[in-house]
Amino acid sequence: MQRPSGRAPAQLRPIKITRNYTRHAEGSVLVAFGGTKVLCNASVSSEVPRFLRGRGSGWITAEYGMLPRSTGTRMPREAAKGKQSGRTVEIQRLIGRSLRAAVDLEKLGENQITLDCDVIQADGGTRTAAITGACVALVDALRHMQREKLLSEDPLLNLVAAVSVGIYAGQPVLDLDYPEDSGADTDMNLVMAADGGMIEVQGTAEGAPFSEKQFAQMLGLGKAGIDELIALQKEALEARGD
Amino acid sequence: MQRPSGRAPAQLRPIKITRNYTRHAEGSVLVAFGGTKVLCNASVSSEVPRFLRGRGSGWITAEYGMLPRSTGTRMPREAAKGKQSGRTVEIQRLIGRSLRAAVDLEKLGENQITLDCDVIQADGGTRTAAITGACVALVDALRHMQREKLLSEDPLLNLVAAVSVGIYAGQPVLDLDYPEDSGADTDMNLVMAADGGMIEVQGTAEGAPFSEKQFAQMLGLGKAGIDELIALQKEALEARGD
Amino acid sequence: MQRPSGRAPAQLRPIKITRNYTRHAEGSVLVAFGGTKVLCNASVSSEVPRFLRGRGSGWITAEYGMLPRSTGTRMPREAAKGKQSGRTVEIQRLIGRSLRAAVDLEKLGENQITLDCDVIQADGGTRTAAITGACVALVDALRHMQREKLLSEDPLLNLVAAVSVGIYAGQPVLDLDYPEDSGADTDMNLVMAADGGMIEVQGTAEGAPFSEKQFAQMLGLGKAGIDELIALQKEALEARGD
Amino acid sequence: MQRPSGRAPAQLRPIKITRNYTRHAEGSVLVAFGGTKVLCNASVSSEVPRFLRGRGSGWITAEYGMLPRSTGTRMPREAAKGKQSGRTVEIQRLIGRSLRAAVDLEKLGENQITLDCDVIQADGGTRTAAITGACVALVDALRHMQREKLLSEDPLLNLVAAVSVGIYAGQPVLDLDYPEDSGADTDMNLVMAADGGMIEVQGTAEGAPFSEKQFAQMLGLGKAGIDELIALQKEALEARGD
Amino acid sequence: MQRPSGRAPAQLRPIKITRNYTRHAEGSVLVAFGGTKVLCNASVSSEVPRFLRGRGSGWITAEYGMLPRSTGTRMPREAAKGKQSGRTVEIQRLIGRSLRAAVDLEKLGENQITLDCDVIQADGGTRTAAITGACVALVDALRHMQREKLLSEDPLLNLVAAVSVGIYAGQPVLDLDYPEDSGADTDMNLVMAADGGMIEVQGTAEGAPFSEKQFAQMLGLGKAGIDELIALQKEALEARGD
Amino acid sequence: MQRPSGRAPAQLRPIKITRNYTRHAEGSVLVAFGGTKVLCNASVSSEVPRFLRGRGSGWITAEYGMLPRSTGTRMPREAAKGKQSGRTVEIQRLIGRSLRAAVDLEKLGENQITLDCDVIQADGGTRTAAITGACVALVDALRHMQREKLLSEDPLLNLVAAVSVGIYAGQPVLDLDYPEDSGADTDMNLVMAADGGMIEVQGTAEGAPFSEKQFAQMLGLGKAGIDELIALQKEALEARGD
Repeated sequence: MQRPSGRAPAQLRPIKITRNYTRHAEGSVLVAFGGTKVLCNASVSSEVPRFLRGRGSGWITAEYGMLPRSTGTRMPREAAKGKQSGRTVEIQRLIGRSLRAAVDLEKLGENQITLDCDVIQADGGTRTAAITGACVALVDALRHMQREKLLSEDPLLNLVAAVSVGIYAGQPVLDLDYPEDSGADTDMNLVMAADGGMIEVQGTAEGAPFSEKQFAQMLGLGKAGIDELIALQKEALEARGD
Repeated sequence: MQRPSGRAPAQLRPIKITRNYTRHAEGSVLVAFGGTKVLCNASVSSEVPRFLRGRGSGWITAEYGMLPRSTGTRMPREAAKGKQSGRTVEIQRLIGRSLRAAVDLEKLGENQITLDCDVIQADGGTRTAAITGACVALVDALRHMQREKLLSEDPLLNLVAAVSVGIYAGQPVLDLDYPEDSGADTDMNLVMAADGGMIEVQGTAEGAPFSEKQFAQMLGLGKAGIDELIALQKEALEARGD
Repeated sequence: MQRPSGRAPAQLRPIKITRNYTRHAEGSVLVAFGGTKVLCNASVSSEVPRFLRGRGSGWITAEYGMLPRSTGTRMPREAAKGKQSGRTVEIQRLIGRSLRAAVDLEKLGENQITLDCDVIQADGGTRTAAITGACVALVDALRHMQREKLLSEDPLLNLVAAVSVGIYAGQPVLDLDYPEDSGADTDMNLVMAADGGMIEVQGTAEGAPFSEKQFAQMLGLGKAGIDELIALQKEALEARGD
Repeated sequence: MQRPSGRAPAQLRPIKITRNYTRHAEGSVLVAFGGTKVLCNASVSSEVPRFLRGRGSGWITAEYGMLPRSTGTRMPREAAKGKQSGRTVEIQRLIGRSLRAAVDLEKLGENQITLDCDVIQADGGTRTAAITGACVALVDALRHMQREKLLSEDPLLNLVAAVSVGIYAGQPVLDLDYPEDSGADTDMNLVMAADGGMIEVQGTAEGAPFSEKQFAQMLGLGKAGIDELIALQKEALEARGD
Repeated sequence: MQRPSGRAPAQLRPIKITRNYTRHAEGSVLVAFGGTKVLCNASVSSEVPRFLRGRGSGWITAEYGMLPRSTGTRMPREAAKGKQSGRTVEIQRLIGRSLRAAVDLEKLGENQITLDCDVIQADGGTRTAAITGACVALVDALRHMQREKLLSEDPLLNLVAAVSVGIYAGQPVLDLDYPEDSGADTDMNLVMAADGGMIEVQGTAEGAPFSEKQFAQMLGLGKAGIDELIALQKEALEARGD
Repeated sequence: MQRPSGRAPAQLRPIKITRNYTRHAEGSVLVAFGGTKVLCNASVSSEVPRFLRGRGSGWITAEYGMLPRSTGTRMPREAAKGKQSGRTVEIQRLIGRSLRAAVDLEKLGENQITLDCDVIQADGGTRTAAITGACVALVDALRHMQREKLLSEDPLLNLVAAVSVGIYAGQPVLDLDYPEDSGADTDMNLVMAADGGMIEVQGTAEGAPFSEKQFAQMLGLGKAGIDELIALQKEALEARGD
């Protein structure tokens, strides 16, 4: 089997994590998984959702969007339609849940960090790129809060990364790009912490169901990919002396 | 460990599947997983979504809702708010995807079946009850179409059922009710076909991440639960001579 | 003249009032007028609308919905369309007004009772069934409040019931089902209290106008029907010892 | 008893019907019931609603609005809120139904007339003024269509007028203004045709229920008021030689 | 060149300013620029927008609407569509900005004046008529506030008026009506204060761009028109002894 | 006077125009006016708006958005609020109008080009940067259409650019950044074509009105700035040999 991308089955796309991509956000990361480019901005606020007010605990939330022409065919702008699609809502809920697992919300104090993940260019795997990039933006925001004495201790529990795996032409492959994703029988997204803890496993068969064996193979590929991604996150976070 | 419900870890709640619950729908099933009661109505239409028109292939879609007072505290009515919540959208997409895997869409011809899953009373696991009940309503709708000569052959590939599993007080348990779900560290929903094919695996750690071992245990429990549910679906479908 | 339903002109459909139909609501009634089945849940809240805050007086309000496949042809789900239809709004305003006449709002204290009337199956007369069933749910909610010492005296003034009357094939008939309603020249809904007080009279001629004589005949039929309905409400409310 | 307005119980406010109030509409009437002023514009279109297309029959519909400062306290603009209130929807449905009874929809051919009733200044009874004024605008639009040879015969069946009646301080009174309406126990709107046919009777007791006797008294007052209004409509329609 | 209206290039349409047009508003002006008629109601409120609360300063805001049949062809009602058009939003922002320049917002105290500009009949230049009329309604509202002792000094800085100018058939013309506007290459709206200060200049070339010379000519025509309009505002404001 | 930015009154910020910034759009330009960065994507479609269908003529339209954290304080996401703000609507209408003046719409044939202008980072003047960048993206899209033989001749009439001018501390200055814009008395946006034709002039005084002399000075500064910008557009368009 030959992947359309020419990559080996267990090979990630070239990953690039650029910090401080924009000027205003407390954390601002452009993450590229090959041709997929997502801008992840972390914003710190002292306003938490109503259900947390006065409890001394914080919150992480996320919003996701695609620029209308991030894709091959222009998609209608959600702001103009007046409605976020079901897919958008699903993805931003996943990003928020995943990153809440990275942080001790009590130690965050009564603060909220919002992660805006906006897809500049799409080529498959935008949600996994978003989680991986947003985690770096989140760390930068937490560092900012510590520098500004908004936090007395570091609430980070673990780095968190995400990757997709799928069955393409009968074989498990890692980090599918758009042509591979379109041709795959099964799509699975895996979110894990640096210590190997599993945060989210979402395997979906729109075509034929998958077997337990395939599921186990995908899980194995995914875990290895996550390890690589977390190493790249660490490298990026060490790169500049902040 | 004692489950709040007093059930054994691998024990389902009492399951009840009532067919022909309402009069108008081509398939109408009230499914009860203990105190969780969902009305699943299947509606047949010859209008398919735009992207399928003229292709001779059909579609299965789903909508989900909760009656405002299906829950302990009254929830605002989504029709009055003018918006479905993110959770609603996520669930109805999951139901639709799951049941599309039950059917050969080509054999369905250019027809659409809509599965309306409305929660009459909620006590945890409404989405898995909905999938399990909707599959029976779907079969009734397919039988109706065959009786009405709208189909020349049966498009059903496999019965599909769903169940939740979780880690409660450190131990994997099957089919969580609301008090168990609220206290669980991890929630996993499993959708499988009668032949053992996996359709959807969604494991989520809002609290602590889960280990691979826990994941495997949950998977094991879930598979056994699915087998029981599919046996109950079959029994219900044989019960009356249509 | 023969009614499509075969009933005598002054004959109600079989009426069935089932209390405690669901578990969570303070009052929960499934009411059936023949094939029309409406679930009426009463929810008690200590939050009153803004215009009543701090005035020591309470409020009764209602919301109405039809399950998408409660009808012969599937109707679009209002939550998905993002908008309640004009008909829905009209009906829920009528239910609320009618039941406010049943209660001394001062004696209710600063509490609100919301009546959710959801049509499970429709066969004409859903609004009159909803009012009739919601009144029983309301009484159960008031009893609950008294048991919980939320009220020092009973705010109930009068039971309230509703019925439709119409001119079918030139003759006044009581409690029209869907085929009768579709064929009727005039449709009138009558809401009355147990003491004979009139709460709402809505007579509408979409086809030919009706004469004063017909109007008087319809009023007579309706009054007799209301008497029967109130007797059935009383019976249901006495049936169990709460 | 003295009415706040000083009028006799059976006395209408000064009624003024001004035709051709604006320039563009096929019928344009400013109707004043005392301080209540409603601009009623009739627009002719050859586009009928979907359910009538190709059936050769026409439709009458209505929309209702209040200018934000037509009332004593400024009301939020419905266009800015993005939503018509329940009251608005109820009223515009009533206006449409009432005027459909004035016309033979088959003779109207496949044309639609939309009646826009916009309240310039409100002092009670806006819906009855709207119906009464819109009927005159409708006649002007039908005359226009005949002049333009869009119709071969006159589809007008009957003039239609509307008036409110109520119980104020225990006594039935006609055509309530805002202070009377606010103080009334019962409010009833009556829509009738020139030949005495009843089109819509809507009696509502928000406060105490009303007795049958009161209902009959109100009906009597209302009928006399309708007769006067229809005479005024005729006078207005004869006034200028079109 | 002959203007379609037959007017001289620098000639305004007949302008009519009617104060106290409706009864409830603190300022109520019907302004006519020829066939364009706009009802401008000023409403005083002690609730300012959130960003001004507690700052002791006031606010002027505006809302704009067109009655559906103010135009030659009926336009959909924005309240029914659930959305104000881009054009509406643009115009109401312009009106608000323009009139804020007429007033010392500090002297207004923590009060808000809302100017509702509703087009009764349209024939070009509705936004300039609206600004010109709304300024008179604003003055009446300020006088009302002074009479009611809500203000200790007059916050009015300057009367403000607006007019359109355009290039029609190559020649600059003042105050375009609808046929002229439709045929013009360039449309410019000018808002100025009584002391000659410029508040808003909006020149737009949908067709061919315009030259600087044309721009200067239009500016000259517009300034003369504004002078005339301000004289008419003053006359209207002196006309009655309030 | 010293500008906060330290620039000379007539000095533009560093302008950078990067073509082919993303992969999918027919024209994709990142334009930077100092710290203001806008991504301008041009999408070609053969679907024109309804009012143009079958007329053989094309259309240019624009949509504008700001990423939530493009600004110093996070702004709510318009897609999540379900509504574009008045400011957004105003700006995207301006961009569309401005670029329609750059093109012979007849020569464009029945095609539409949509210009999505998304602000990645904001520091004042986003709308003028958007117009200037979108014009370059538009040219790239027109070149693409010619290469693909979708056009037989070049519909470009003129390059179009835009710049802001204002009165800061009493002195006219060019191309205001955010701190200057916040402190300015007057803000004017100027859109002009390469041949000196004026397309849009929007001068606004939220604070004190401006004099004619100031207006003329601003116009002079703006024209010189536009000349520079058009030279930079030309340079960018010649830079690569497509």
